[in-house]
Amino acid sequence: MAFKKVVSGAVAALTSVAALGALTAPALAAGNPTYALNGKTVEQLSVHGGAQRLAALGNPGAKNVILFIGDGMGDSEITAARNYLHGVNGSFAGLDKLGQPGALLTGDNTAAEAGSGQYTTFSLGNSSNDSLMAKDKDGKLAGSKTAGVITPVTDSSASGSGWSTGTKTYNNAVDVDVKGNPQLNLIELAKAKGLATGNVTTAEIQDATPAVLESHSTERACYGPQGKWDGKTDTNGDGKLDASDGNQSKNCLADQLKVNGGIGSISEQLLDTRADVTIGGGSKYFNQLGLDGKTLWQQAADRGFLTVENDVDKFAGIDAQATGKKDQPVLALLGGGNLPTQFNPTPALTQAATEKRGPVECSVNDAWLGNKTAAGNSASLADMTNKAIDLLQANPKSSKGFFLQVEGASIDKQDHAANACGQIGETDDLDKAIAAALKKVDLKDTLVIVTADHAHTSQIVGEPPYYALSTILKNADGSQTVISYGTATGEDKGAENPEVGYTAGGMEHTGTQLRIAASGPGASRVDGLTDQTDNFYTIAGALGLATTTDQQKGLSDGGKVAVNKSDDGKYSADVTGFNGDAVLSYQLVDDASKKVVAASNDTTPVSGVRVATAATTTLDFGDFTPAEGAKYTLTVTGRQSGKSASVSFPGASGSADKTPGKGNGGTVAQGGVTKPNAPLGKTGATILGLAVLVLALGAAALTVRFAKFGRR
Amino acid sequence: MAFKKVVSGAVAALTSVAALGALTAPALAAGNPTYALNGKTVEQLSVHGGAQRLAALGNPGAKNVILFIGDGMGDSEITAARNYLHGVNGSFAGLDKLGQPGALLTGDNTAAEAGSGQYTTFSLGNSSNDSLMAKDKDGKLAGSKTAGVITPVTDSSASGSGWSTGTKTYNNAVDVDVKGNPQLNLIELAKAKGLATGNVTTAEIQDATPAVLESHSTERACYGPQGKWDGKTDTNGDGKLDASDGNQSKNCLADQLKVNGGIGSISEQLLDTRADVTIGGGSKYFNQLGLDGKTLWQQAADRGFLTVENDVDKFAGIDAQATGKKDQPVLALLGGGNLPTQFNPTPALTQAATEKRGPVECSVNDAWLGNKTAAGNSASLADMTNKAIDLLQANPKSSKGFFLQVEGASIDKQDHAANACGQIGETDDLDKAIAAALKKVDLKDTLVIVTADHAHTSQIVGEPPYYALSTILKNADGSQTVISYGTATGEDKGAENPEVGYTAGGMEHTGTQLRIAASGPGASRVDGLTDQTDNFYTIAGALGLATTTDQQKGLSDGGKVAVNKSDDGKYSADVTGFNGDAVLSYQLVDDASKKVVAASNDTTPVSGVRVATAATTTLDFGDFTPAEGAKYTLTVTGRQSGKSASVSFPGASGSADKTPGKGNGGTVAQGGVTKPNAPLGKTGATILGLAVLVLALGAAALTVRFAKFGRR
Repeated sequence: MAFKKVVSGAVAALTSVAALGALTAPALAAGNPTYALNGKTVEQLSVHGGAQRLAALGNPGAKNVILFIGDGMGDSEITAARNYLHGVNGSFAGLDKLGQPGALLTGDNTAAEAGSGQYTTFSLGNSSNDSLMAKDKDGKLAGSKTAGVITPVTDSSASGSGWSTGTKTYNNAVDVDVKGNPQLNLIELAKAKGLATGNVTTAEIQDATPAVLESHSTERACYGPQGKWDGKTDTNGDGKLDASDGNQSKNCLADQLKVNGGIGSISEQLLDTRADVTIGGGSKYFNQLGLDGKTLWQQAADRGFLTVENDVDKFAGIDAQATGKKDQPVLALLGGGNLPTQFNPTPALTQAATEKRGPVECSVNDAWLGNKTAAGNSASLADMTNKAIDLLQANPKSSKGFFLQVEGASIDKQDHAANACGQIGETDDLDKAIAAALKKVDLKDTLVIVTADHAHTSQIVGEPPYYALSTILKNADGSQTVISYGTATGEDKGAENPEVGYTAGGMEHTGTQLRIAASGPGASRVDGLTDQTDNFYTIAGALGLATTTDQQKGLSDGGKVAVNKSDDGKYSADVTGFNGDAVLSYQLVDDASKKVVAASNDTTPVSGVRVATAATTTLDFGDFTPAEGAKYTLTVTGRQSGKSASVSFPGASGSADKTPGKGNGGTVAQGGVTKPNAPLGKTGATILGLAVLVLALGAAALTVRFAKFGRR
Repeated sequence: MAFKKVVSGAVAALTSVAALGALTAPALAAGNPTYALNGKTVEQLSVHGGAQRLAALGNPGAKNVILFIGDGMGDSEITAARNYLHGVNGSFAGLDKLGQPGALLTGDNTAAEAGSGQYTTFSLGNSSNDSLMAKDKDGKLAGSKTAGVITPVTDSSASGSGWSTGTKTYNNAVDVDVKGNPQLNLIELAKAKGLATGNVTTAEIQDATPAVLESHSTERACYGPQGKWDGKTDTNGDGKLDASDGNQSKNCLADQLKVNGGIGSISEQLLDTRADVTIGGGSKYFNQLGLDGKTLWQQAADRGFLTVENDVDKFAGIDAQATGKKDQPVLALLGGGNLPTQFNPTPALTQAATEKRGPVECSVNDAWLGNKTAAGNSASLADMTNKAIDLLQANPKSSKGFFLQVEGASIDKQDHAANACGQIGETDDLDKAIAAALKKVDLKDTLVIVTADHAHTSQIVGEPPYYALSTILKNADGSQTVISYGTATGEDKGAENPEVGYTAGGMEHTGTQLRIAASGPGASRVDGLTDQTDNFYTIAGALGLATTTDQQKGLSDGGKVAVNKSDDGKYSADVTGFNGDAVLSYQLVDDASKKVVAASNDTTPVSGVRVATAATTTLDFGDFTPAEGAKYTLTVTGRQSGKSASVSFPGASGSADKTPGKGNGGTVAQGGVTKPNAPLGKTGATILGLAVLVLALGAAALTVRFAKFGRR
């Protein structure tokens, strides 16, 4: 229930300039007595790469990397599933092969490099009580007493942010640091290098683990522009289905929403990130309505995605070799929420009830997508993994390599629900996905990693315990595994009422160090004891991506901006090459009056314009109309890189280049990053500078129109 | 409480020939439907080496091996201790260095080979209900319904037997297989190769983990000839302290006791194994009385041990370089029972009570031996480890190498007791012992391994749980770790009454796969997923010991027997070179009548004569007096190797060699193993053969006197 509590305790709004001051002040260091040993303060831990344990070790290169995540798959979960599925002495076909010396061969028939070890998973602070993060609606700091501390038990979003960005952050954070600043993730960095990318999960695609590859969000629940609305329920009872429905105010930081000039929800950013392959659940949230009034499904189609909504046969029919479409991004969401589990639930019971029930065996869930459709198709995690790899390998970009993450999400979710068969079936699904992947790649050039994001509740005990709930399973070898669940902070009503229990999920994550294993080039980098953030460096280093903050800032050195005028006289700008940034800010200034006539919302780190990853980001100036004879300067700044590109253009309508066939429209002016080596050490300083400017503009600032970011 | 239950349910006597049939029949295979997957039946798993996962991989050689065992030290225990002691981001000075690539250097200043992985720890069957093991006093099989099954959660004796002998066995077994047959352990095999050996623990030296290096016992509780008697309590109230006190009938299989012609208790066998260095607790059990009426302390001194009883200053004063005594075995037992823990206990409480109490910090226990005495000495586990290595390195045998096991025992014991500070202090003690050892050895020639025997209860959670008991700890970095305990099968009264709780210890082991890490030659053999029994092969292989059953049998090819007559006319025999055996049987037959005039008790696998490891075993024929003119044949058979040596000698008293200065005494006759390649595939066959012989002797067999094994 940790997730629910974090969400319900979270503070949404962060809109005032005063709050911005709190965000950027070095409060973590000042007067904070909390120091980790090992020579690092909490503030040092909180910076990009600050929690690495392995910084000194290098990486051999790998062309491709596949990262398998068993959400909540601690050692107990692995062992319990092996016991049940393969016998206590048995072996997983995929899971137990990775990292096993001599178990896997490369295409040359030589033993693949293998590595196995463990990593620490702690997180920092907490968004619900971190004074650095947010003020509540009354402008007061919430729960500042525990700000900036180390949190021994992570959630999936902080842990996912760790391996996806290399930055240690707070529970509830999606690819933002403890101050809320977006951190570039593996897909953004892989796309900056031109690689093909994929993201597969059995969860809602907006759930934390897939979300860390597609978005930056201060709240993990900010699924869509209307929060967690399904797009079909009249939540406010006004008789209409529109953007006033939903629960965005509960689920999202207000200034992150596009309607407030923010970078948008997780689903919207997924379209900006534009991975080549995205497969999972959570289709119903794409029924939400974007700023343009269209559903996100419509937006995806408009933006060129091949979309599949809850249709296993259509999914199975996607042709990776389709002529001329090998570069088309695929968005296949095969269920409204989390995808159904392989096995039906087995409720954990109290000691006497468990003993009375005796050993149980798991049965297959009719709703599982791994079952064959009438047309003979299926969508187990192995099927989804096969499809993802087929698509990536067919994609022309994969000549440079690919990065793919595959998550078995419901190991965690069923462990939360104290559902032994549930978690075991999902572990099986993941294992088979690994085995499938191993048949499609060559470990000579592909690094395959398996790990978890955090450990979980289930324990293997000798007899049903007095305290905890438990289930006795009959193992494949005839022996019995007793699985115990006892971490819930309140009574698990599911034990008495399975119908409730399996949606509630009262059990909690645990904070032990976790197994990580790998085979392929650089696999031995996971040996020994590492930190979760080391996994970012292992993957990014193997793929040759930009890992250091300076390298990442350098990705925006080629930033360019072009001011365009449409045939009907509307002004906009196309921004490219800011590959070291996730968010852009801009100002359009009247050179004579120095008045800001249009600007992005820069009040929070997740306000402003979301970068279309390794593509063209369009700034829409709405109804801005230049005055004849005036001159304007547009300055676009990467919020992460600190790099700026400026371009000046006259207000005279006649000054537009006459591009053939475009009427009066065309490119008005172009410019590029002119101070690629600006000495901006911290992103925070940039934000502060911009904010102070906005503040200095006084009344004028209050009238600037926040960008409404749209893409054609 | 698993241990207590096993003991109370254990069946003691195994004395009839009918029971022997049950022991040797292939009941595991016949009609038993229980098969592990992975291609192995339970019976296949139960043989020496049968559970290896890594059989195909070789071992580089190491001159020395040190094995550190954190009893019950699962990943949660490691992480919780790190969090508290060094901060969540901190590192252990020893524990986190082993297996860490690049973290440790050899004497050549090159990076030591490093390995890290995990292993499975399951056990087989259960002595209390295994039809293959024992009959109860009424001659009935006990609990045969679950015989031969796989047990997912091991105890410390089965797990210790696994790495010590390479044989998977049942909970409660000490170096015997599921049929009760002794399996050679690492110290026996190391001594057979002439290496120096050591055994260090913070537990009673008779506790399972140290016991697996010094004895073979069907019951782990068979501490001494009077069971778990302290030698000072008149338990039967007869006003005397003698061998009628104690609880041997509860703690020991009757026929294992020397008084019944067995190989003796764990403490007695410790003296036979004669490691060069033995340091731990459990001194009070050496107050028990041997067959000769002497205390075991007296026996130890008589047999040449340097003994230390509960005296830290004397312990500290042991001079490893003492002239002429570098080969003297040291037996230093520094406390009556388990040694005191470093930290005082912190009771785990119910949710409301834990929250009311708030974060706690650990305080040092005044009784901890790591505190300085008035003379400035101490005996932390690091001190004990330093002393052990000093002694081993000074020992002339160490020119060939040494094997040392060091156990931090009370991580487990305090986890049983839901005592967070207790388990953390013991983890610290182990970590510092590792760090101390790393300063004394060169990883170029020394393999250092750290692992645990099984996982345990404690979990790191975000908040005190509703179900389990918990303790909130204030970590070194100022953050808080909440540790939860919920595996007890009954209410933990310790939660309400700490005085009771910390002696009771109601929490249970868990069955997850476990971390193993190593540095030094061959360290990478622990990579990936192995089984606990693989650790035997890793260690024995590195040291070049006999690992296969055939190799081990071959160690008895040089077996020799010499019949001696003492000056006062008593006959005995000295047996040497049966280094592939732990137990000998013998028969002394009158050649003319074919009557057995003296014989060992061979009714169970742990009856007979315990081999004095790599030394001389003396068979005492008591008041046997040969008839003038008669001729006798003594046949000695190694129960493990199946190798036999026979020697015939005349009854004429004048036939003894007249050795100078020995009066009439001297060697009467000598013989050696004559059929080194006897095709005895199974030890059981040998036992059966001998038993059938005894049975065939009919009434005569009932009169044979069982050997009373004594050594000078």
